[in-house]
Amino acid sequence: MDERETGTAGTLFAIGGAEAKLRRRSVLRAFVTAAGGERARIVVVPSASSLGPEVVEVYQAVFRALGAASVEAVRPDSRADAQDPELAARLDDATGVFMTGGNQLKLSNFIIGTPFADAIHAAYARGAAVGGTSAGASIVADHMIAFGSGGSTPKQRMSQLSVGLGLLRGAVVDQHFEQRNRYGRLLSLVAQSPSLLGIGVDEDTAAVVRDGDQLEVVGRGAVTVVDGTHLISNAYAAQRTAPLLVSGATIHVLPAGSRFDLSRRTLVQHVEPLPDAEVAEVRAAESDLRGLARDIAAEGISPTHYARRLRRGQRH
Amino acid sequence: MDERETGTAGTLFAIGGAEAKLRRRSVLRAFVTAAGGERARIVVVPSASSLGPEVVEVYQAVFRALGAASVEAVRPDSRADAQDPELAARLDDATGVFMTGGNQLKLSNFIIGTPFADAIHAAYARGAAVGGTSAGASIVADHMIAFGSGGSTPKQRMSQLSVGLGLLRGAVVDQHFEQRNRYGRLLSLVAQSPSLLGIGVDEDTAAVVRDGDQLEVVGRGAVTVVDGTHLISNAYAAQRTAPLLVSGATIHVLPAGSRFDLSRRTLVQHVEPLPDAEVAEVRAAESDLRGLARDIAAEGISPTHYARRLRRGQRH
Repeated sequence: MDERETGTAGTLFAIGGAEAKLRRRSVLRAFVTAAGGERARIVVVPSASSLGPEVVEVYQAVFRALGAASVEAVRPDSRADAQDPELAARLDDATGVFMTGGNQLKLSNFIIGTPFADAIHAAYARGAAVGGTSAGASIVADHMIAFGSGGSTPKQRMSQLSVGLGLLRGAVVDQHFEQRNRYGRLLSLVAQSPSLLGIGVDEDTAAVVRDGDQLEVVGRGAVTVVDGTHLISNAYAAQRTAPLLVSGATIHVLPAGSRFDLSRRTLVQHVEPLPDAEVAEVRAAESDLRGLARDIAAEGISPTHYARRLRRGQRH
Repeated sequence: MDERETGTAGTLFAIGGAEAKLRRRSVLRAFVTAAGGERARIVVVPSASSLGPEVVEVYQAVFRALGAASVEAVRPDSRADAQDPELAARLDDATGVFMTGGNQLKLSNFIIGTPFADAIHAAYARGAAVGGTSAGASIVADHMIAFGSGGSTPKQRMSQLSVGLGLLRGAVVDQHFEQRNRYGRLLSLVAQSPSLLGIGVDEDTAAVVRDGDQLEVVGRGAVTVVDGTHLISNAYAAQRTAPLLVSGATIHVLPAGSRFDLSRRTLVQHVEPLPDAEVAEVRAAESDLRGLARDIAAEGISPTHYARRLRRGQRH
């Protein structure tokens, strides 16, 4: 498939792993909604997983509980499988394609460059919700973190990049970001390739991208974006596993409700719900201020006015 | 002591904990050198530690092994101790004051605002090496991280700020930065107080500050600086322990050899030693290019020229 022809009509989900499957389920609920809700026909792709049918059963149960019309599994388990046009054709009617966690190198190894990958691109282009969790999140961008080590400080050779699906361009997605302390490896990748936008997704959290570049955050944690536009690094010179110089990286930590423009690399908005207690306080203050304004206007007019105000105040 | 009168003639050491005490010892060696080398008279302040004399014995052994003229311990173990002018006077001749690790709230509780703290400021003002490791690093800035929880994602209420010594202004120093995954708590503090420069120091690494604002990095890890100048945050509104929005923080990860201007908040330089193998390669390439230039100049002149060049090349 010609990369330039990739459509962006769909909704992209990069989930940081360990998304809630009971109770709140905000991340998976958002996926079902984006896939069409009650009309959602979801295909689960468990190729990254070393688990058998049980991983499929879990997602079938939760997607059905969340109201999806149908949930089926399509599992290419080799590059030969993914070359099979009949297997790929099973994505033709999907309104959602969900890749499970596991080992993302299995996904890249089996799928990238095959008719199965083309079918995922086609689903995305026609408006499906496409993406996945953990390994299934890493695979969505054009550059994929294959593996690496944890730690806050970026070091030479702490991670490895390979080729991803390319549903998201100019980016690299890391997952379990907070829980596995992955600042260092994401910074090291951006230090080596400052044009790449680094996207780190916490567990039970999703980076949801619409229109190709409008990122919105759903879930319990945050999405961390590393922008290397103005970055200075010694990544071309650092030796072995030495800590890397990474000066001037811009960081955006985006909790649920944040919107971020991946092309302009800026925060679009963050909606903060006003807590109930504060709403009441603001209203009380406003009515107080109105009373005070009346008092000032009435100042010196009549002592009975104050007496009346005071009595009114005491009644509240 | 009037804060405006604090001198900055000395060398400030903020060490991230677990500095090497055997073999390389680059961090403690730098401390002894800054304290005067063979003329160094170092006072160890172990007040933060819950250990007894053994913590002093370790530093006495290592500072003496590194050539210091004298190493003694002065240990205020209460606020009353630190109010004692005689105890404070024992710092009068020190060319180095080294605060050990432990609980930094003990340091702030016992020392800040006492004659003992004044004596540390006086030592710094007259040119001593002053600072410490772990808890002894956190205490040096004007704002001190008292305690907090780990994790990459900044959250409301994940850490607590209290008052530090103020040898470094407009900053907060965190330690064990990489090893204890402290990005989140440093980002959360800068989100709440964007004027503060966040400084995270890895283990076996020192942020060494001269002239009040010229930071240099020594040791095995890196110093991470978080600059909130252009930061957008919802820290004023986020509820309970929710992840914080922190958009537009500028990050500098500085390995050994980096210099950073804390006032201008910019990288000054990073010196990268050329590896021996590369030096040889560059020299070989240069001589090759010179040969190629000669070849180009000689082109068409004489076939024997090439024959001569080839023979010369084979001899190498």
